[in-house]
Formats: sequence, structure tokens, C-alpha cells
Amino acid sequence: MERREAEESGAGGNMSKVEEKKWSRRADDGGENKENLSKEKFDLAGVYVSDAQYNRNIPFDPSPQAVRLYLLYNHGLLHVLVYVFIMVDLALALFEEPAVVSLPLWATSAMELVCLLAITLRVIHYSKVIPRRIFFRDPKNLCIIVIITLFLIDMIIYGALYASGHSSVRWSRVLRPLLLVNVTEGQQLRRAFRSIRNALPQILVVFCLFIFSLLIFSLMALKLLGKRNLKTIDGTSYFTNYLESVFELYVLLTTANSPDVMMPAYNYSSYFAIFFILYIVINTYTFMSVFLAVVYNNYKKHLKEEVRQLVKTKRQKLRRAFCLLKENVGTVGNEGTGGTGEIGTNPVVSQSRWTELVKQVQPNISTAHRELLWSVLDHNNKGHIGKQAFLQIADLLNIQVITLKSRPHPFQLWMPALYNSTVSRIIHRIVKHRVFVFVYDAVILVNAVFIGLDEEDPLVSNAEWAFLTLYLLEILLKLYTFEPRAFFARHQFWNWFDTIIILSALLATIINAALKSYSFLLGPQLILLDVVRLSWRYADITLDTVALDTSQKLAVLVTDAPARHAPTICPLLNSAGGYTSRQILDIVFILRVLRLIRVVDTIPSFRAIIDTLTRIGPPMLTFGQLILVVYYIFAMVGMELFKGKIQVFAANSTDPAREYCGNPLLKDSAFARNNYCKNNFNDVVSSFILLLELTVVNQWHVLTGGFTAVTHNAARIFFVLFHIVVVIIIINIFVAFILEAFFIEYMVEKTDLHTSLEKKIEELNLCVEQEQMNGNLVEAMETQENDMGSSEGAKTRPTLMFKISSKRYRTMDALLQRMFETETDLSADDMNEDAEDMNFSNPSFNPA
Amino acid sequence: MERREAEESGAGGNMSKVEEKKWSRRADDGGENKENLSKEKFDLAGVYVSDAQYNRNIPFDPSPQAVRLYLLYNHGLLHVLVYVFIMVDLALALFEEPAVVSLPLWATSAMELVCLLAITLRVIHYSKVIPRRIFFRDPKNLCIIVIITLFLIDMIIYGALYASGHSSVRWSRVLRPLLLVNVTEGQQLRRAFRSIRNALPQILVVFCLFIFSLLIFSLMALKLLGKRNLKTIDGTSYFTNYLESVFELYVLLTTANSPDVMMPAYNYSSYFAIFFILYIVINTYTFMSVFLAVVYNNYKKHLKEEVRQLVKTKRQKLRRAFCLLKENVGTVGNEGTGGTGEIGTNPVVSQSRWTELVKQVQPNISTAHRELLWSVLDHNNKGHIGKQAFLQIADLLNIQVITLKSRPHPFQLWMPALYNSTVSRIIHRIVKHRVFVFVYDAVILVNAVFIGLDEEDPLVSNAEWAFLTLYLLEILLKLYTFEPRAFFARHQFWNWFDTIIILSALLATIINAALKSYSFLLGPQLILLDVVRLSWRYADITLDTVALDTSQKLAVLVTDAPARHAPTICPLLNSAGGYTSRQILDIVFILRVLRLIRVVDTIPSFRAIIDTLTRIGPPMLTFGQLILVVYYIFAMVGMELFKGKIQVFAANSTDPAREYCGNPLLKDSAFARNNYCKNNFNDVVSSFILLLELTVVNQWHVLTGGFTAVTHNAARIFFVLFHIVVVIIIINIFVAFILEAFFIEYMVEKTDLHTSLEKKIEELNLCVEQEQMNGNLVEAMETQENDMGSSEGAKTRPTLMFKISSKRYRTMDALLQRMFETETDLSADDMNEDAEDMNFSNPSFNPA
Repeated sequence: MERREAEESGAGGNMSKVEEKKWSRRADDGGENKENLSKEKFDLAGVYVSDAQYNRNIPFDPSPQAVRLYLLYNHGLLHVLVYVFIMVDLALALFEEPAVVSLPLWATSAMELVCLLAITLRVIHYSKVIPRRIFFRDPKNLCIIVIITLFLIDMIIYGALYASGHSSVRWSRVLRPLLLVNVTEGQQLRRAFRSIRNALPQILVVFCLFIFSLLIFSLMALKLLGKRNLKTIDGTSYFTNYLESVFELYVLLTTANSPDVMMPAYNYSSYFAIFFILYIVINTYTFMSVFLAVVYNNYKKHLKEEVRQLVKTKRQKLRRAFCLLKENVGTVGNEGTGGTGEIGTNPVVSQSRWTELVKQVQPNISTAHRELLWSVLDHNNKGHIGKQAFLQIADLLNIQVITLKSRPHPFQLWMPALYNSTVSRIIHRIVKHRVFVFVYDAVILVNAVFIGLDEEDPLVSNAEWAFLTLYLLEILLKLYTFEPRAFFARHQFWNWFDTIIILSALLATIINAALKSYSFLLGPQLILLDVVRLSWRYADITLDTVALDTSQKLAVLVTDAPARHAPTICPLLNSAGGYTSRQILDIVFILRVLRLIRVVDTIPSFRAIIDTLTRIGPPMLTFGQLILVVYYIFAMVGMELFKGKIQVFAANSTDPAREYCGNPLLKDSAFARNNYCKNNFNDVVSSFILLLELTVVNQWHVLTGGFTAVTHNAARIFFVLFHIVVVIIIINIFVAFILEAFFIEYMVEKTDLHTSLEKKIEELNLCVEQEQMNGNLVEAMETQENDMGSSEGAKTRPTLMFKISSKRYRTMDALLQRMFETETDLSADDMNEDAEDMNFSNPSFNPA
Repeated sequence: MERREAEESGAGGNMSKVEEKKWSRRADDGGENKENLSKEKFDLAGVYVSDAQYNRNIPFDPSPQAVRLYLLYNHGLLHVLVYVFIMVDLALALFEEPAVVSLPLWATSAMELVCLLAITLRVIHYSKVIPRRIFFRDPKNLCIIVIITLFLIDMIIYGALYASGHSSVRWSRVLRPLLLVNVTEGQQLRRAFRSIRNALPQILVVFCLFIFSLLIFSLMALKLLGKRNLKTIDGTSYFTNYLESVFELYVLLTTANSPDVMMPAYNYSSYFAIFFILYIVINTYTFMSVFLAVVYNNYKKHLKEEVRQLVKTKRQKLRRAFCLLKENVGTVGNEGTGGTGEIGTNPVVSQSRWTELVKQVQPNISTAHRELLWSVLDHNNKGHIGKQAFLQIADLLNIQVITLKSRPHPFQLWMPALYNSTVSRIIHRIVKHRVFVFVYDAVILVNAVFIGLDEEDPLVSNAEWAFLTLYLLEILLKLYTFEPRAFFARHQFWNWFDTIIILSALLATIINAALKSYSFLLGPQLILLDVVRLSWRYADITLDTVALDTSQKLAVLVTDAPARHAPTICPLLNSAGGYTSRQILDIVFILRVLRLIRVVDTIPSFRAIIDTLTRIGPPMLTFGQLILVVYYIFAMVGMELFKGKIQVFAANSTDPAREYCGNPLLKDSAFARNNYCKNNFNDVVSSFILLLELTVVNQWHVLTGGFTAVTHNAARIFFVLFHIVVVIIIINIFVAFILEAFFIEYMVEKTDLHTSLEKKIEELNLCVEQEQMNGNLVEAMETQENDMGSSEGAKTRPTLMFKISSKRYRTMDALLQRMFETETDLSADDMNEDAEDMNFSNPSFNPA
């Protein structure tokens, strides 16, 4: 792992000064023939810029052939395909024994082979892109090769044993999530794991100290309470065995057995409460906070270092791209520089080459957008830009600029007289007025109250129609007032949201009413609906019955199915249909309730928090992958250890075994008493849900107690390990992430310490305002409606406008950079390398 | 509250420039007669310095009379007395109905009157110290007056009603903890409360958003689950009532009902798990983290601002003290300045005045220590110091310097021949050797294992003697090697710790053995022991029986006492005594186990964490007071609401009411089933323990469920309020505090960004080393033993040495300042005021 790190940063990042020089020279050779830069050069420069833009860190071979392969390698579809194949591979756990939906072995094996083939092809492709020497020195590639080999070996062994009638363990399933980590695209996930690994020594120190404290407290508990012949509420002995005491007090760390473990001693004498209070204060509160502090601090520190490296690499790549494209401008270029008073040749990039490059990197960018970006860079209209300005290109391209075309409303073209009439203008004014928004916010709130009421009440169901009519009216009025293509633009999230919800609600309400009134007339439709629902139900039954042995399974299906389907089939056959449409209505109701978010989103102080939360969303995907990897591994191990040990019975089953989850060892256990039978490791879905419950830690001892009862006390090791990994480390990283995001948010908001990215956006904003627009853009950025409305105004407005969605960060790294840029002093690093650039003359970012 | 803040900082801190000038002028008048500075001036200057040193912020009247009163006011004993009286007042809850130990009303009332009288006297004293105008404008004084008045009114009303046979509510008890907040000494507690109050708006925004999310999820749950006729495990309906749903999901925020609330829906269909998973991820994890982020950020921000103000005030006070004491040095003084080349008069303070001042401020400081401090300040031996150097005095006095006198061992004086013999020297070398420490660490570890074993085993009990002998030997050897007065110096914590533990263990083991062998011979001693234990027991019984009505109580005491006392009295009468000595042994065992901490403390990486934790200790006292105030208020309200509703029965009671905690409403409730009867509000001790259990939040719904069952569902408001105040706000502050302490620790450790305080200590350290010692002090600071040992060396060593205990911060404010000094840029504030001082010439802190 240590080597991998060195590899990644070594190959992509810290290319030595010598190599850098070589690059510079090679580029100079090409720079001589100023106009006819070869296609290869542009390809290579484009690849550098796009790598910098997306923070890719692949040490590809710069030969034209490899670059072409690399362009293909970076194709978005291939990325998606790799993840699809990995996800399919991971999802195979659903179909393998113990399965949610059982598939024959040959089917899952074939699917797995296809996935492995796809990943192998990807790795081969990768090996063609980068120099062979680097490929074999990179541990992540070796890991992938080893994993695939192990997969194949395991499949052969398992297949052979299966064919000869023996059962075996599919141990390679544990390795599956490692594909997610070691695939080239998993850069961010690898970074997260590296950060955790680097934090481990510090965590270990605190953990040892905690264990010491735990052992001392257990010893005290043994001495204080062991000899008093106390009994727990279950009648078991109380702190008589040292190892049991350690476990009990470990559970108290999770607070899962909080008052219960204390009660026997507390009932005996109030003084013993002191012991437990001390334990809770020291271990449960203090040590858990220290864990958070250590995890937070170390994770942040290492991640910061990685991001710093990343930014360095990015600048290096951009510098290389610049070297490839640069032309030398002599005294002619120097005339424009003005202030610096430097005489000599300045390497610059001309507008034509820059345009070519941007076309190469982002083919779908509009000409207007491209020209806007150029105008920002080339502040003085010199027709070329220097190195400093060129280095901004990746950040500039990463800022999402939405091009708005101010088009007239279709009605205005079709019937201008009517559309411009007084009544029509009044309607426009009403719709654009604030009160209109407030009224509809109020309507949504009132509707939420009605949703909460009983929908059997005729008043309520009639009110539904009234609300739907009001909502429809709202959409129609807005469509009448605003230009429809602008209204349904890609970034108008709330408009899409509203329209889809209201149309589905309308559809569902109509179907529901129709079903209620003419259920006998609508037979075919009803059957269609019920078929969907039956398949849903079927999945459900399989979920429930996988716990049973195969022999029992059929019996349950046969005996149980009619009973369970009775309520499904009956209404279909004899009446109402109200029950059938309930599920559709449920979903629509939930969606309608979500409209309330829109109301909340209009209040600024709430909006700030929601914005912060949505901004953490995308980077949280990496965190989601982290959780997936850990959960998957524990689920696979758990399934091998505990599958079939605990069984689920249907709700109306009369089997006496239902009382103890089909395992006599669970008789009278808290696990069975709480009806936790469905919390088991019998399939991958149940396992994941159980692991989530264990993450929440409440009733942890009851849940784990069930599994130790049916196996052995040693099973506790598995659960304690899970607790340490997930609750102590991973959840703390989650908390740290949210804390950090909010701190950055508060810092930026309060101390006006704008990060460089935000500064850039603000300055861009100014530029746009000054040069292209008539000062209305800033407002236009706030509310789309506003900007649409002012087209009535006397001013002549341009037909093209730009909107910067500054609140979104396309990549995880952008947020991370923003998170750490305030703290890491990147300029110090770049000082040496950029010393020569200091005198260059594109002061585009200081419009005085 | 807003006014109070303004008051405190306004009166003490931001004394206007005009007033400052006036001060300066007045001081100048005095400064004219250089030698004969009046006693009043010294008193006043001393008060300023001591206020700066302890961060007191009292706007006292600078008239000589008021200053003398103020000196008395600041006397340590009076401070302690005030806290004692407040604590006694708070502790009255133990003796008032519902009481732990019942005392008649006249007794508690008399005690309360005494406490109130004491506090009133203190307030009157305070009113004499500060100008009357300020006294009545300060809300904390008005609060105290109002509180005392309300107390008296309530006592009269209650007394009158009690005398006429009516029962009433002692509502003024809720106000008691406010004394702790509003007393002048409670400055830090007030600051904490102010910080919380200032953070409230932000917390409220997040809380509203959370409530919104809760309401939406409840609406969804109602729609999705309410109509499915599901039942919980208790057979109650499941998500059919909106308010119930809201409460259930609120409880899920605490995770207390984690898998249980999901199980009915999950058993019905696995798909419903998605709903609960979403809820847990969004509300339980994300929102709780956001709460931590908001509380942390705001608390830190406001506290930082307060500390900044505090530091400013401190410098102002020191500047005033300087003005009082300054003398003008003309060109004579200028000769010494050297570098600055400034010509003119420099105000300075001469050594004689400085010495006088330090004597005034800290009478118990040793002459050597005082001279050391002066030598640090007056680096160039000029005999006077400038303003900049003078301002360091408070920080210097706050650094704990321990004066070590290198004395010869008494044995060396009594019998030098023997003490200096070869054998004796070998013993010295052995004891000072590292291996000696390691061997005893190993012995302690082995002993810990033996403690864990069954002490009935004769091998184990004999081993105890062996261990005790070894420990005794260790202490005797150390006493022989090291000078006893140095060994038992005030700061030698571990030596004291070891000796006390070992002596008590020896005593207890002897008594235990004696009791076992000759119990009949030791009658008197045994009876003495048992009397102690009986009183203990008695307290216990009263604790148990307060739940019962007074009529029942006697009966229980009569019927129950013999049964409970049987095991107590029997062994006393007939045999063994082993049981009696158990409790003594228990305590000694626990203490012996604590010796393990010493072993852990020798490992550096553990030591770093333990050091950080112990350093947070003292500031945590403020946090403890915060918790005490909140708990006390909730306990008082809870006792009024729920007292006597739930009753406790003795373990061997056969009363059928024991099954349902004496309240038929609790029949078959989870509360009674879990045997939680002792978790009640029947007296103040039980209330506090219950509130702690509610803070831990596990089984929160079961605990609160019991109280809502015996009263009304509205009781939930009380518990939810408690949860919001304690778990969401106060516990998060606790976590924030620990996080911050560790971050500062890591920052200082890792980035070498030493805080100014630490820098100062280091530089002091250097000074001491260079000027006074022969270079051995740094080592001496590390291990006391070392320094004792090297007296054998050939070098001639001074008889006096200093040890700086840099790791301790005497005041809460010192840590806070250190916590925030790295971030707050104090110099910017002082720039204006200190601009004139910049040219002064005491570069004492730059020994080149």
C-alpha cells in the first residue's frame, strides 16, 4: 500500500525536474511552426487539460498511439460500464445461495465470468495506455489480477465440489468489493482507505488506552459486584466471570444495555450507581469523543496532504499542456503588458489554439460560452494569454455556466395581440408577484394537513380534486407567463419536480376514482395493476422463506401462499379496488408531501443549511462506497457464519417454532421475545439491514446475543470487530465530514475568507456583468423568474445570458479542494515552479 | 442578559480612552515622588495585577477604602465559603420532602436562611466594593436580589400553608441553581450560558428544519403504515395516530427504539425498511451531526470572542498598574537600551517597586522565585523594566514554578559513613535504575492478575502478603535513596498516590486477616467497623423507602430492617467477619487496580493522551456546573411532577405490587417488566441518576413510557425538552470541548505553532538554564528522580532549583486562552494601544 501511494503520486505527480525540462524542450520544438500545430499535440494537450479538470491521475504514455487509446479509455460510457459490471458482480450475492431470488449455479457463474471478462478487458486496455514498467509496479493493478485469478480458482473448486455433491464455501465473494477499490476509477475510494490506514496508528493508541480502561473497570466490577450473588433480570449471573464482565462493559460503551446492566447493582445499593456513572462519563462519553477527535484530525490531515498533491499534479499537467501549445511573442506582445516593464519573449497561447483546445476538451460547449471564458482570461483583448491565465482553464471549465437564451414566448409569436393585451399583462404581473408564491406555499401547507386526514372522508377526497385543480392552474399559468423551454430547462429542478408530481398525482387520482366507481368496467386495467403487485408480493415471500431449508420452503410456499394472497386476490375478484390503488396513491402522497421541501427551501436560513447538505451529497458517494465495501465484506462473512441458523415464519404461521425463530436454542431469549427473527444473515438484503441496525447500536446486545446463542460465544468477536470498524472509525469519518463541511461553510460565510474558487466565480460574474450584460445578471442569478420578467422592461436586452451555478461542485475533488484550500498554502509550493511566471502579463483577475 | 454582557465588559473592560487618560494622569501625579509611593498605590496596583492574573473582571471603585474592602472580598476563604453555602443550599434537596434523609421543615428552613444570609452578606460586601451606579445596573446582582426575595416569599407561603395543614409546592427550589450562575464568582459559568444563548438562533434554525423533516416523515409513516393494521410487539396500534407517529420517530432520533419501531413494518414487507433506513441516515445521523457542527461552531465562536475581550481587559489592567508604578528614566535609562537609538524619557518600573508589588500580589512566593522572575524580565540587568516587560507579570506569576531545595538525605547527616558505603551506593544505583521501575511495573501487572483471581484461594491470599511486602520494600528503598521531603513534595502526585494506597492496603489486609483469625478477640474493633457500615446501610434503606408514604414507611422499616440486617448482624455475632471486611478490601482493591494507571502513564504515546485528558479536567469543572444547574432544575420539576408515582420495593418483598412498581397503571408495562422501579423521581439522588440514564438515551422510551403511563402523555413534553437541552445542546458542547482540546494539542504538536504561553515557558526555561543552573534542569524537569540522583555527581550543584510544571493550567481561562490564542489575532487589537510601547526597550524575550 505504501508503494502504491508512491506510485500514484510519483508517476503522475512528482515527475522530476529533469523530465519536466525535457517536456518543455520537446514542446518548444513544436512551438516553432506557429500555425500548423499537429493534431497529436492538440490531442495530448487536450488530454492534459481534461485530466487536470477531472483530477485524473494516470501516468499515461505520451506517444500519439497511447494518447488515442487513452482518449478512448476516458470515454464516459466505458467508466459507466465498468461500474455497471462491478455492481452486477456485487449484486450476484442476491442470486447465489443463500439467495433472495435463487438462480442456478451456472447462471450466476456465467454472469460472474462476464463481469470478470469486462474488468479484465478494462485492465488490458489500461495496460496499453500506460508504460508497461509502471503498470506492473502499481499495486492496484496487481491486486486486480490477483483478485481475478482467485475468483477463477474459487469458481473452479466450488464448481467441482458442487458437481460432485459436496458443499463448499464461496470464499472469493469476500474479495468482490475489493474490485471497487482497486479499479482505476476508484481513486477517491482508495484515497479514503489510505487516509483511514494512515490514521490507524493514532486510533490504535487511543483504542489500547480504552481497552486498558475497560479491563480495569471490568476488574473492579468483578471485585465489587461478582461476590454479591446478584442476578440479572434474565436470572443469569451478574459480573461473576471476567470475560463476561469485559463484554458487558464493552456493550455499555455502545450504550445498548444502558440502564439494564446497572439495575441489579443499583437495586442492591444506590452507591453502585457511582461506578457505572464513572464508567459512562469516562468511556462512553470521553473516549468516544476522543475517538472522534483522533479520527477526524487524522483523516483530515492525510486527506489534506493528498489533495495538496492533487492540486500540484493538476498544475503540472496544465503547465505541460501550456508548453505544448505555447508560441513566443516578442516585443509585439510586450507592448500590451504595460505595467511590468519587462522586455523579452513571452510564451503565450493564441486565441485560435485555445479555442481549438477547448473544442477538443469539451466538444459540447457552446461558442458563446467559450467566448465568454476567453474574454475572462484575455482581459485586455490582446488575442493571446500567458501561462498564469492559461493555468486557470481547468477551473474555468469546471464552473458550470448555464447559457440562457432569452426567447419570446410562443404565444407572443402566434397571437401577439392577445398575449400583449391588458388582461394578459395583469396575469403576467400576478404570476410574477411574490404573493402568488406565498399563496401557493400556503396551499401546499393546507394540502399537507389534508393528506394527514383520513382519505375515506368524502370532504377530504373532494378536497383532493380542488388541490389538484389549483396545482394544475399554477403550472398552466406559469407556462403561460414564462417561456416553456426556459421553464423546463435542465437546471430548473423545482419546475420539473412540481410538474412530474402533479401530473402523476392527477393520473393516480383519476385512476383511483375510476376504480372506485367503475371497478367492474375496468377489469383489464385492474388485473394489470395486480400483476405488478403480485410480483412485488412474490419477491416478498421469497425474502421471508429463504430462512427455511429447501425442503421446508416448498411446503411453506404451498401452505402459506393462499393465506397471504387472500387479501390480494379477493378485492380483485369481488369489489372496491380501493385497496389495489392504495399503493399507487401512497407513493403519490409521499411525493406530494415532498413538495413541502420547496416551501422550506424558500426561507433563506433553512436554504443555507439545505444547500450545505446537498453540497455534501456528491462527495458522500465515496463515503457510500466505503460503507458498501465494509458492509459487503461483513455480510459475506456473516452469511457464511450464520446462514439458516435463524428462521423467519410468516405472520400468520401457527408453527410453534415461530416462537423461537425456528431454533430451539433461542427459546426464551430476548432475541426471539422481541420478534427479531427477520434480523438474520439468511440473505444479502437481510444481512445489510441487520448490519445497519448494528451500526445504530441500539439493542446491539440483544441482536448479537441471538447469534451467539445459536452458534458460540466466539461469534462476539465478529460483532465487536464490526462495531470497531463501522461505529468507531467509519461513522466518525461521516461525522467529521459533515462537521468539516459546515465549518468551511461558516468560515466562508462569516469571515469573508473566500476561497480562491469562489473568488474566481465572483470575478467572473463581474466580468460578465461589465462586458456582456446590462447589469441585470446578478439578479437573474438569484431568481429565474425575475430575469424572465424584466424582458418587458424598456431596456434592450441581449438574447443570450449566462447563469453561473456556483453552488454546485461537479466533482468530489472540487469540494475537497475547497474544503482544504483555505488551510493549505499551495502558493508556497508553486513559488519555485512559478517564479518564472511571476512577470508574465495577463492580470485578467484584477479588474481594477 | 444583553445588558449584563455590556455591563461586564463595559465596566471592567472597555473603559473609555478618556478615563484611561485620566488614569494615566493621576498615576503620573503619584509617579513624581519617585521613592515614596504610598501604600494605597501599591494596594491598587497589586489588585490590578492580581485581577489580571486570575482574570477577575470586577469594576471596583479605586478609592483606597474600596480597594481595602476589595482585597478582603477576593480572599480565597470567602470564595470557598460562598460555594460551600451554595452547595449546602443545593444539598437541602436531600433533606426536604421528598427526602433521602428526612429532616423537619424548621431545620431545612433554618439552613436555607443561613445560606441566604451568607449570600446576602456577600452581595452587600460586593455592593460596597463597586460604585453603586454600576451595582444596580448589573443584572446578575438584580437577579440575586430577586432570587433571594422569591426564596423568602416562597418560604413564608409554604411555611404558613404547612402550619395550617395544607400542602404546597416549594417552587423556589427550581431557582436555587441560579445562585450558582449569578454569584459574582460564577463568571465562567455565566460565560458558558451566554455562549449557549448566543448559539441558540443557529441551533433553532437547524432544529426547525429537523422538526420539519420529522413531521414529513411522520406524515409518510402515517400514510404508508397506518392503514395496514399492523401491531407492535406489545399489541398496540402502529403508526395510526399522527402525534404518536411523531413521538415514535422522535424517539428513533435517540436510537432508543431502533430496531423495534421498524420490526412490524419490516416483518410485513422488506421494502418498508427503506423508509426507516432513510430516516436514520437523514435524521439520526445527518441532523445529529449538523447539531454538533452548529453547536460546536457557535459555542467556539462566542467563547472566542469572550476570551478575546478578557485578554484585552487583562492588558488594560496591567497597563493601569504600570501607570501607577512607573518612574521616568531619562537619558540615564536610555544608555542601556542600545539598539533602538531612541532619545527621550522612558517610563519604567524599578526592581524595588516591582518586588514590592509581587510581595503584595503573592505574599507566599519565595525570594528566589521572585528574583528568578525578575531576571527573566530584566534581561539586561538594568534594574528597571519597561511597559512591555511589565505586562508579562500576570502570565509569569501564573506559570507554576516549583522551588526545589537540594538537601542532603537525613541519613547522610546522621550516619554519613554508612550512607556513603559501597553497599548503600549500590542500593542507590539499583533504585535509580530503569530496570527497577520496569520490575515494579511488572509486579503491579502480575498483582492485577492476582486481584482478578478468587481471593478465597489460600495461594492468592498468601500472594497478597508477598505483593504488599514488595510494595513496602519499594517505598522504603525509595525513601532511603531520595530525600524524604523531596519525595513527598506537593507536586509528587504518584509518590503520594503509591504510599497512601499501599499503606491502606496493608492496614486493610492486616485487619482482614485479624478478623478472619481472631474475630472473637477483636470485638470492639468489629463493632466500630459495623457501626460505620450500619449508618451506610441506614442511608441505603431510607433511599429505598422514600417512595412509600410516610405511613407505610415505618412499617417497612420495622418489617424490613431485620431481614436486611440479618446478614449484617449475623457474621458480627457468630463468626468470620470476612463479610464485614469485604467492603474495606473492595475499596483497597480498586485503589490497587488504579496503580495500573501509573504503568500506562510511563508509555509516551499513552501519556500524551492522558495528559490532554487531565488538562481538560479543570475547565470541565465549569461544564460540570453547567450540567449540575440543568440537572437540578429538571430534577426539581420532575420531583414535583412524578414523586411517589412509582414505588420501590425491597428485593425480598413479597408484596404483589412489586410486580408493577406499586402503581397498577404500570401492570404489564415494559418499565415494570425491566425492573426499572428504582428509576424514579422520588428523591433527588434517584432523580439525578434517572436523568443521567435519560442522557445516555438508551431505553429512553421505556423509561419515559413508565412516567407517561402513571401520569399523562403530556409528560412527554418534559422528557423531550430534557433531551433537547441536554443531549442536543449540552452533550454536544462536551464533545466540542474535547474535540477542540485535542485539535489544539495536535496542532501544537504537529505544526510547531507554539502558543505564546508555551513559547514563554520555553524561553523561561532557557533563561533559567543559562543564568542560574548548570544545564541539568531540563533533565531534572523530566524526572524528579534523575535530578535527585545527580547530586552524587562531581559537579557542584546549587542548593536551589526550579521546576516549571508547564503542563498544568491553574485557571480555566488559561486553557481557554491557549485554545483560542492560536486563532485570535490579539496583536491587531493592541496595535493602537501599544503603538507607543513599540519603541520601548526591554527585549527580554529575545535572548539571541
